[in-house]
Formats: sequence, C-alpha cells, structure tokens
Amino acid sequence: MTIEQIRKTFDSFLEEHLAFGQPEGLYEPLHYLMKQGGKRLRPLLLLLATGLYDDRFERGLHAALAVELFHNFTLAHDDIMDEAATRRGKPTIYKKYGLPSGILTGDLALIYAYEQLVMGLPASLAIRLMAIFNGFAVDVCRGQQLDMEFEMREHIRMEEYLQMIAWKTAVLPAGALQIGALIGGASEEEAAILHRFGLQLGLAFQLQDDWLDTFGDEQKTGKRKGGDILQQKKTALVVYVLEHGSPEQARHLLEALKSDELQDAEKIAAVQGFLEVSGAKAAIDELQRKYTREALAQLASLNLPEARLQPLKMLAEELMGRKG
Amino acid sequence: MTIEQIRKTFDSFLEEHLAFGQPEGLYEPLHYLMKQGGKRLRPLLLLLATGLYDDRFERGLHAALAVELFHNFTLAHDDIMDEAATRRGKPTIYKKYGLPSGILTGDLALIYAYEQLVMGLPASLAIRLMAIFNGFAVDVCRGQQLDMEFEMREHIRMEEYLQMIAWKTAVLPAGALQIGALIGGASEEEAAILHRFGLQLGLAFQLQDDWLDTFGDEQKTGKRKGGDILQQKKTALVVYVLEHGSPEQARHLLEALKSDELQDAEKIAAVQGFLEVSGAKAAIDELQRKYTREALAQLASLNLPEARLQPLKMLAEELMGRKG
Repeated sequence: MTIEQIRKTFDSFLEEHLAFGQPEGLYEPLHYLMKQGGKRLRPLLLLLATGLYDDRFERGLHAALAVELFHNFTLAHDDIMDEAATRRGKPTIYKKYGLPSGILTGDLALIYAYEQLVMGLPASLAIRLMAIFNGFAVDVCRGQQLDMEFEMREHIRMEEYLQMIAWKTAVLPAGALQIGALIGGASEEEAAILHRFGLQLGLAFQLQDDWLDTFGDEQKTGKRKGGDILQQKKTALVVYVLEHGSPEQARHLLEALKSDELQDAEKIAAVQGFLEVSGAKAAIDELQRKYTREALAQLASLNLPEARLQPLKMLAEELMGRKG
Repeated sequence: MTIEQIRKTFDSFLEEHLAFGQPEGLYEPLHYLMKQGGKRLRPLLLLLATGLYDDRFERGLHAALAVELFHNFTLAHDDIMDEAATRRGKPTIYKKYGLPSGILTGDLALIYAYEQLVMGLPASLAIRLMAIFNGFAVDVCRGQQLDMEFEMREHIRMEEYLQMIAWKTAVLPAGALQIGALIGGASEEEAAILHRFGLQLGLAFQLQDDWLDTFGDEQKTGKRKGGDILQQKKTALVVYVLEHGSPEQARHLLEALKSDELQDAEKIAAVQGFLEVSGAKAAIDELQRKYTREALAQLASLNLPEARLQPLKMLAEELMGRKG
C-alpha cells in the first residue's frame, strides 16, 4: 500500500461516512468543513501506524475519521477565536455560515469524532483509545488557551513556547499514531514509542512552519513570505531572540514588529535581517533538525523490518523536507 | 435516601472532581460555569434511576457529573448563539470572560463529560452508555439548529415545535434516566421505559415553562411574567394559534408581538388576552397535563414497589407542580 492509496481509501471512507440528517442547515456546514480538504495528515499517520502491525490498515478507518473530525472541530472553533477570515483560500466556516453555525458545527464534529472513535472495536480497546483521545483533546484546549495568552504577553520563554506548540499541534499526530498502533495490535510500549515519534515530528513540523513563513522559498511553500511578521506573531524565531538576545535586542525586535512607520516589504526585510543576525534563523533550523533526528531515532528503535517502516519514514521525510 | 441527600452528595462529588490544571486561564471559567448552580436536575434524575435498581446510587456519580458537564457545555455555547447576557442573574460565561473563553470552556466541558461518562465502569457498559450519550448529544445540536431556524420563520407547526423541544431539552433528561438505570442494573427494556418517562416529562416541563412565562404566578415562579412575549418568542402558545387559529388570528398575533407602538405592559396584556381567548392557554395546559400523565403512566408500568418509585415520583410532581 502506497501513501497515495491509503489517502484515497480514507477519502472515500470519509465521503461515505459523512453524517446526513435533519435539519439540513446543521449538516451542510459540517460537510463544507470536512471537505475543505487539507492533507489528511493525522488520519494518514494513524492508518500507517495500524499498517505497521496489521496488513489490514482498514481496521483503523473509523478511528482515522475520528481524528480528522477532531482536527476539523479545532479548526472551526479556533478560526472564530483567532478571527480568521479564510482558510486555504476559502471563507472559514463561521464567515460563510455565521457565528452560531461555526460553533454548532464544531460541536457536532467533536461529538461525531467520539462516535467514530469507538466504532466496531472490542469494548476494552475502545475504552483505552477513549482515554488517549480525551488526553490529547484536553491538551489541545490547553494549547489554544496558552496561545491566546501569549498574544497578550511581552516575554515568553522558549520552554513555554515549546509546551504551547506541543499541546496545540503535536499531541494530536502523536495520539493518532498511538491509537493507530494499538488498533493494529502493537503493545503499549510500541504504541508509546510511536507517540514520542509523533510528538517530536509535530514539534519539528511546527518549528519548520515558523521558519518557512519567514525564510522559506515561496516557489516551494506556495505561500507568501512574512505573514507571521505582519501579524506580529511571536513565532519560535521571535521567542529565541526574547530568550537569548540582550534586553536591547528584544526591545528592538518587538518595536520593529509593532512599527507602523515601515511599509510591509520594509518591515519584513528588517525583521528577517534581524532574525538572521541575532542567530535565531540558524538556531531554530538546528532545533527543528534535532527534533526530526530524534523522531526518526524513535522509529529506528521499533523492532520492525526496514521495508515495513518505509511508508511512515517517507511521509515524515516529505513533511520535513519542505525547505528543499 | 432523600432527594436532598442525593443532591448534597452530588454537589460534594462535583466539587471534588472539578478539574484543575494549567493554564489557570482555562480552568477558572470552567469552574465559574459549573458553579453557576442550577437545580442539578439531570444528575438527580440519573442518580434516582440508578437508585431504583441498586441501593448504591453512588455508582452513578461519574455519569451524573458527565450529564451535568454536558448540560453546562450547551449553556456556554447556546448563550453565545442566543446572545444571552445573563443567566440566573449573573453574567453568562462569554460576557464575563470573552467570546474565545466562552467557546473553549464549552469545548472543555464536553470533553470532560466524555471522560467522566466512562469512568470506573466495565468496558462493555461504558460503550453502551457512550452510544446513548452520543445519540442525545447529536439531537441537542439538531434542536438548537431548529430553534435558531424557527426564529427566522413565520409559520411553525405544533408537530415541528414539539420535535424541536424534544431534541433541545427533553432527550437529555431522558438519556440521563436511561443511563442511570443501566448503571443500576436495569434491563434494556426497563431503561427504555425510563427514557420515555424522561422524554414525556421533559416535554411537559418545557410546555409548562412556556405557559408559566406568560400566565404564571410571579410569586411562585420568581420570574417576571411576559419575558417571552417581549422577546417575540414563538412559544408553544403562539405556535398553537399559528396552527389552529384562522389566518387573520395568526396575523393579528404576530403583529401584536412585533408591534413597537405598545408599551411593554400593554403588549403583554394584549398578547395574554389574545392567547387566552384563542384557546391557546387552555390547550397548552391540557397538552402539558397529557404528557405529565403519560410520563407517570410509564413509571407505573415498571415492575417496582411503590416505595422504591417514591423519590422519582416526588421529583416529577415537584417539577410539574410549579403552577401551584
């Protein structure tokens, strides 16, 4: 099974299992939300983990849909909290259907996630997966809260920043891998190794995301550079300067970010230059590489033949190779 | 065990099991939400149902907390959707802590509800309860959607209105009773009878609520009369006229509700008079009594000694006796 085949199988499964019902006004926004697409990374990770231990990766399909529903629940609600107007070039759900629908559709996605999670599994396994799912669900809320609090704060330590992105983005792929492995028949120890792999991969991915937004090759990322700078986001790069720079450097950076005297292009260039000279660019790149190495070392520690690990490794390398 | 003792036991349990954690900004609003009080009706119904079949009603405490968390999740989100500023005389959660906190606190309450629901139970029972819980959770979303849609519509049939209140308010006490009974060791058949009891009681309760808001004795209800009229709500009384009145009567009523030429007291008196003359007052009172009778008949059909049924019957009579 190639990654592409698994993705296709998942997409058909999602299409078949999208709930329909009355009133239509409740279900149409849910379908819009779930079909905005995206890379289906979390269900893919889950199914690849199932496939490590059982050739019938399809056994993980309901749980894979559960993590995708959960992910979309967070998008629906976070977009309201962050006042985001578009996602992947289309209006966010609350912009298209109104605030009440944005909230209610997120709620429905979360409830369906729980429904799908336990479907068709032996009760004791289902209850074990529930505990994992509840654990990361609470953590994702904690991460969102911390992220909002950081916007109001001047100073953030790197340790706090890493905790925030772990909760907000890394625990979900980690939990997806752990769940997928257990469905496939892995031991708790093996599933825990895959959880660590996912956590470190998730951290590396978010650090790379921060780095690419400021220093990436627009041809490769397909995104305009400097969005985070213009939104004055406290990315890992900024947090590095706040922690390791002198008080003057920190002040200088925050002033440049907040300045309304500079044109957009000037501001981006000034902040980029500053983040490079201060060592943040190199340091965050190195930190990301460290997490990627550690993630891959986790995979290597699994007692599995190289060929079996290949698809998961390829996906990880694809995800982490966006710098080209 | 008296109802008061069970309520006290539940309140201490809730106090002990309220989650604490980091960041504080996430947990403080949750505690505010859960401590706004209220009558704890849904957990009480659940524990009374457990107590019908098992003297250790405490076995239902985690599930009772789950339904109370679920109820509070709906309050947190519905208050945003309905733009409600106060609840029981205190600011609603999103008014006090802001919109993002209102959303996030509701999400957290829902996740904790699932966590509590399955706690300490045999896996197969836990999975059975999950299915019941998911069922009413989706229905409550459907009811909320329908309620919002009704605001935009001129004409609503009584059948549709009853469906809306069944989903929005009656399935939750019904599900709580069913869950409580199963925890106590009831058969599926017995639990289904208690579900029907809860559904009919819930419908009766909501119809009584509509009636009391327009015709109640302020001394007994503790609420000012006519709130629904001033908010132009399409209550059961209004829906009755829309369905059974002539087109002229319906138009006349809707005009009176929307009129901005009348003083508040005049408008209330005019609409009250109209609802009485048109037969709506008597018809909704009779409909409520019918559901109450049917609910109590369900209880009677359980093969249980009268003494055992007493506390649940008393609670139902207390709930349905608010007209004095």
